[in-house]
Amino acid sequence: MAPDTHPTPHFVEELDQLKQRLLTMGLIVEDRIRLVIQALIDGDASLTKRVIDGDGEINQFQVEIDDRALKLLALHQPMAVDLRSILAGVKINTDLERVGDLAVNIAEATQRYLSHPPVTRMLGDIPRMAECAQAMLRDALNSYVSGNAATAQSVLDRDDALDDLNMKVFRKLLGSMLGDAQTITPALNLILIARHLERVGDHATNIAEDVIFIVAARDVRHIADARR
Amino acid sequence: MAPDTHPTPHFVEELDQLKQRLLTMGLIVEDRIRLVIQALIDGDASLTKRVIDGDGEINQFQVEIDDRALKLLALHQPMAVDLRSILAGVKINTDLERVGDLAVNIAEATQRYLSHPPVTRMLGDIPRMAECAQAMLRDALNSYVSGNAATAQSVLDRDDALDDLNMKVFRKLLGSMLGDAQTITPALNLILIARHLERVGDHATNIAEDVIFIVAARDVRHIADARR
Repeated sequence: MAPDTHPTPHFVEELDQLKQRLLTMGLIVEDRIRLVIQALIDGDASLTKRVIDGDGEINQFQVEIDDRALKLLALHQPMAVDLRSILAGVKINTDLERVGDLAVNIAEATQRYLSHPPVTRMLGDIPRMAECAQAMLRDALNSYVSGNAATAQSVLDRDDALDDLNMKVFRKLLGSMLGDAQTITPALNLILIARHLERVGDHATNIAEDVIFIVAARDVRHIADARR
Repeated sequence: MAPDTHPTPHFVEELDQLKQRLLTMGLIVEDRIRLVIQALIDGDASLTKRVIDGDGEINQFQVEIDDRALKLLALHQPMAVDLRSILAGVKINTDLERVGDLAVNIAEATQRYLSHPPVTRMLGDIPRMAECAQAMLRDALNSYVSGNAATAQSVLDRDDALDDLNMKVFRKLLGSMLGDAQTITPALNLILIARHLERVGDHATNIAEDVIFIVAARDVRHIADARR
């Protein structure tokens, strides 16, 4: 077994930089979700274009952060909690990139929704879903940087509420579709947007689970499954 | 910089075991997709229950494989291609677990679909989508185990065809919904199933990209973005 050496100041600094880059990427990604839901609320298609055009920047972040993680592992061969932090960073990077993709998916569905404006206002709880998903994402990332397991746990606790909101939105829109065939196309796009937001919450949950895994060195990912 | 030591026979064996476990997990996950689409085609709800009940097994695989990867990194401090292989293994593990979740999502949508049988047969290209997604997943995993970049590339090449099939299914079902309100509920569930299958293909694509990253030490993930 390799010796359990203390991390060098250089390593600590580089691991901190990795975390800061993930935090910056997370703030950008969260802002994309905010922007695209603003586009939906305001009926402003130009905002959706900004979100779609901005995806390349997020992809560049992903490549850069993976590269940082790989170098940290190769050059410093960290142990225990540092190793788990870096592995979690690699996973969180993937989650954030997917959230960026979801922002693009929402932007595309929003463009379709806005191109056939519905007769009635149908957004319902979608803006609330977006706020909830954004807060979960922000708190999950903060818990990664601070190593605060209680914050991570609070993210896990909110996932069911987001799922419930999604089911509520789905049922209401299905009701519209069944009651008035004219609402089918816009309602479908809103159903897709709500599902994308629910998945943003799932990614925040993944991140929070990784944080608890780092901090507590225990695997909470499938405890809920076992409970069922 | 740490010395670039040769891997020990023990390490080689353990890395091979990690790959074999991922392959086994992948075969199980692929079989779940096959099973749930069979349930949809045959109208057999009992098969959907098997898929839902089997998710715990896949989650156990994920925990075990992450644990193997962590131990390999901590005990052997691998370099270069071995380090990239293990990191890719961690990511592939996440992708496979998500495909398992998608199989459950498809099972749930299939149950809803079967509980309100539609007047007409509406599956269209969904079975074809499933075959395509399964083959992509199988080939992506085989390319990871064999290190064959050409096979990985062939997976990337098929992703657009799967996306096109999904759009075709979507348009056809939307047409049904607009033409006959009675089809709205079943068509919605089929739209969701088709999207889940498309996402299975996305996970296969992620895996193939990781393989090319290992083999060629180059990042193909966002080349397509740059080309756009």
